[in-house]
Amino acid sequence: MAKGDRIWTNARLATLDPGQPGLGIVEKGAIAARDGRILFAGPAADLPSAALAGAGTIDCEGRWITPGLIDCHTHLVHAGNRAREFEMRLAGASYEEIARAGGGIVSSVTNVRAADEDTLIRESLPRLDALLAEGVTTVEIKSGYGLTIADELKMLRAARALAGKRDVAVATTWLGAHATPAEYKGRNGGFLREVVLPGLEAAHAEGLVDAVDGFCEGIAFSPDEMRLVFDAAQKLGLRVKLHADQLSNLHGAALAASYGALSADHLEYTDDEGAAAMARTGTVAVLLPGAFYFIRETKKPPVELFRKHGTHIALATDNNPGTSPLTSLLLTMNMGATLFALTVEECIVGITREAARALGRLDTVGTLEAGKQADLAIWDITEPAELVYRIGFNPLHARIRAGRDATI
Amino acid sequence: MAKGDRIWTNARLATLDPGQPGLGIVEKGAIAARDGRILFAGPAADLPSAALAGAGTIDCEGRWITPGLIDCHTHLVHAGNRAREFEMRLAGASYEEIARAGGGIVSSVTNVRAADEDTLIRESLPRLDALLAEGVTTVEIKSGYGLTIADELKMLRAARALAGKRDVAVATTWLGAHATPAEYKGRNGGFLREVVLPGLEAAHAEGLVDAVDGFCEGIAFSPDEMRLVFDAAQKLGLRVKLHADQLSNLHGAALAASYGALSADHLEYTDDEGAAAMARTGTVAVLLPGAFYFIRETKKPPVELFRKHGTHIALATDNNPGTSPLTSLLLTMNMGATLFALTVEECIVGITREAARALGRLDTVGTLEAGKQADLAIWDITEPAELVYRIGFNPLHARIRAGRDATI
Ligand SMILES: [Zn+2]
Ligand SMILES: [Zn+2]
Repeated sequence: MAKGDRIWTNARLATLDPGQPGLGIVEKGAIAARDGRILFAGPAADLPSAALAGAGTIDCEGRWITPGLIDCHTHLVHAGNRAREFEMRLAGASYEEIARAGGGIVSSVTNVRAADEDTLIRESLPRLDALLAEGVTTVEIKSGYGLTIADELKMLRAARALAGKRDVAVATTWLGAHATPAEYKGRNGGFLREVVLPGLEAAHAEGLVDAVDGFCEGIAFSPDEMRLVFDAAQKLGLRVKLHADQLSNLHGAALAASYGALSADHLEYTDDEGAAAMARTGTVAVLLPGAFYFIRETKKPPVELFRKHGTHIALATDNNPGTSPLTSLLLTMNMGATLFALTVEECIVGITREAARALGRLDTVGTLEAGKQADLAIWDITEPAELVYRIGFNPLHARIRAGRDATI
Repeated sequence: MAKGDRIWTNARLATLDPGQPGLGIVEKGAIAARDGRILFAGPAADLPSAALAGAGTIDCEGRWITPGLIDCHTHLVHAGNRAREFEMRLAGASYEEIARAGGGIVSSVTNVRAADEDTLIRESLPRLDALLAEGVTTVEIKSGYGLTIADELKMLRAARALAGKRDVAVATTWLGAHATPAEYKGRNGGFLREVVLPGLEAAHAEGLVDAVDGFCEGIAFSPDEMRLVFDAAQKLGLRVKLHADQLSNLHGAALAASYGALSADHLEYTDDEGAAAMARTGTVAVLLPGAFYFIRETKKPPVELFRKHGTHIALATDNNPGTSPLTSLLLTMNMGATLFALTVEECIVGITREAARALGRLDTVGTLEAGKQADLAIWDITEPAELVYRIGFNPLHARIRAGRDATI
C-alpha cells in the first residue's frame, strides 16, 4: 500500500451497504483505505492481510463508524440573517409590516447583491463549519438569492470556493428560478428568458453547475415555467431537482419525476400519484423537517405513501435564512423522527446513502463499500439510534475525508 | 483593584437589568469585575476611572455580552440512555412492548442504581459540557432515578461533584417523589414514609439539598401526597418546586403557589386560577419545550394567561433520558419561540434573569448588575435575536465564570 494508507480497527460499522439489511451493521469491523478510497470495509476477521502491510492503524476502541454525512439540500451561501424578521413575527407583526421593514426574501437578495464573493465566503464559513463539526463530508449548495446572472454566478463561485477552504465536497445547484426579483415583478416570463435561462448557460459554461433546481409553487414558478427551465437543463445534459408541493399540491413531484429528477424536495402536499411517479424514476424524496418546524407547517409529507411505493427518502437541513436557519444534520434526523415519524433507520439512511443518491453521487460516497471515497464519521456512541435520539448533542469523535483526518 | 481584575470593553450588553426596559441593552458598553464580582456594567463612558487602574482589559470588538446562561430544570445526572426505546417507539412498538423490553423510567432507575458515583459523574460530564459550550454558568440538577435513600444521595453527591470538575455552579434538588419504584408499586404512602421523607432529611443533613421537587400527576403523586413532601421541606426551611400540570390539570400550579414555591414546571394544562396564583406568590412558570416536542404533546402551556397575570416565565432543557434528551439552551429558546410563540425577549429573559429567580439565586446571578457574580457569555452575533433564531448553531465566543475565562 502507498504511504499514508490507513486502517481503522476495533470499530463497529454502519456500512449502509444496500446489499445488507437495515444499516448494514458490522459489529467487529475494520476499514482499510488506500489513496483516499476504501479498500475494504467489513468484519475485521476478513481484512485482507495485504491491506495491513505498512499501513498506519487506528484503534477505534469500539466506536461506531458511519459514512461521512451528506447534506443534500442547502442555501448555505447567503449574506446577513433574518433574525430581526423572526423577532418581529413573534412580536405579532404581519407579513406586510415585515415586508415594509425590509424583511422577507427581498432582504436576502439585497444582502447577497451587496456582498462580494469574499464576503459571501466569510459569512457562510461558520455555517459550513457547524455542519462539518457533526461529520458532514459532502454538502449541496444552491444559488437563488442573486437573481441577476452576475449575482447567481457569484453565489456559485463562493460555494465552490468553500471546498477550497475546508475538507468537504460541495455540489452546486443552479436555482435561478427561486423567486422573481422586484425588477421583474409580474413578469416571470421575462425573468426566465433574460436571467434564468441565459444565466444557467453562463454558469454551466463556467463549470459551476452540478444540477438545476427551481421553486414550483403558487408564490413562485408554475409547472409550465419550470418545464422551460428543465428543458434547458436537459439540453445541457444536466440533472434536475425541484422544490415541490411544499405549500400546495401543484403536482410538482410528478413533474420532477417526468424529467427523471434526482430529487423532489419538501413534498408536504404530494399525493399518491406523485409518490408513485417518484418511485418509478428513482427520484429521491428529500424531506426538510427544519422548514416544516420553523414555519409551523401542520401538513406532513406522506411518509406512508413513500413507504408503500418504495420511494427513496432523504433528509436535509434546507439551511436558509428565511425558513430554516438550521445547521445540524443530527437535529434534522431528530426532527424527521419526532415530527415526521420516520424510523431511526430511515433517518440515518436519509443523511448518508439516500442523500448521496439525491446528489447523483452514490457511485462515490454515501456508504462504506470498497471502491468508494474514504469519507467517514467516527462516533462516541453505543448504538446508531443515539445519533437520532439526542437533541442538541454532538458525539462526533473524528471526521475523515478521503482517508485523511479532517478538521471538526 | 486586586490582581486579575478585568474589564471588558467595546461590547454591547444585554444586562437584563429589571429596572430597564426589554433586555436592558447598552450599545457601547463595558463591564468591570473585581474579585469575581461585577463592579460596573453599563455605558463605557460611565466606567469609573478607578476601575481602570491596573486592570487587564479585553477588547470585545463589538461582540454582545449576556449574563451566563442558567438551566434551571434538568435531570442531567443519570446513567445509560433510552435510545433503543426511542427506536422501538418509532418502529411502532407499544408502551407494553417497550416496558417488557426493559424500557421506560424503570430502565433509568436500574441503570442509576447499578452505577457508582464515579460512573454517574463520567456519564453526565459530556451532557454538562454540551451545556457549558453554549455559555451556561449555573445548572440545576435533580435526583429522582435512585428511589432508594442511598441511590438518591448518590445522585446528589454526583451532581455536586460536577461543580468540582468544571467551572459551573450546580443547584441540587431533592426529587425523591419522582416515581414509585417497582418494590413499592401501589404503595405510594409507604414509599413516601420510608424513602422520600427520611431520604430528604438525610440529604439535607449532608448539605445536599437546595430545593425540594416532586412530580404531581395521575401517573405519579397526588396533590395530597405532594403536600406531605412540601410540609417536610418547609420544616427543614427548604424552598419547593413542582412538576405540575404536564399531562392533566391536577391544579399543581396553584398547589405549588400555595407553598410559595420557587417554580412550577411544565404547566401545559395549567388554568387561569393557577397562573394567577403563581403571579401572586412570584412562583416562576418554568416551561420545558423540549419535553413538549419530544413526546409530541399538542396542548401548549397557557402563555397568554401568564402574560395577563404577570407570571414570571423561564425556560429550561428538562434534560432527561426519557422525555427530553436535550442539551442545548439555545435550542430550548428556539423551541420556546417556535412551539410556544414566546417572544425573543421572553426567551432570553427566561434563560437568564427568570431562570435565576426560579432557583432563588437572583440576588447573585442572572443579570449584569454591580454586585452580582461576574458570570458572562460573550457572543459572536449582531443582535440578541440571533440567539433565538438560529437552530443548531453555537455563536459563543467566550464563557466567563466569576470573572475568569472558563472552558467551553
Ligand atoms: Zn430549499
Ligand atoms: Zn423534569
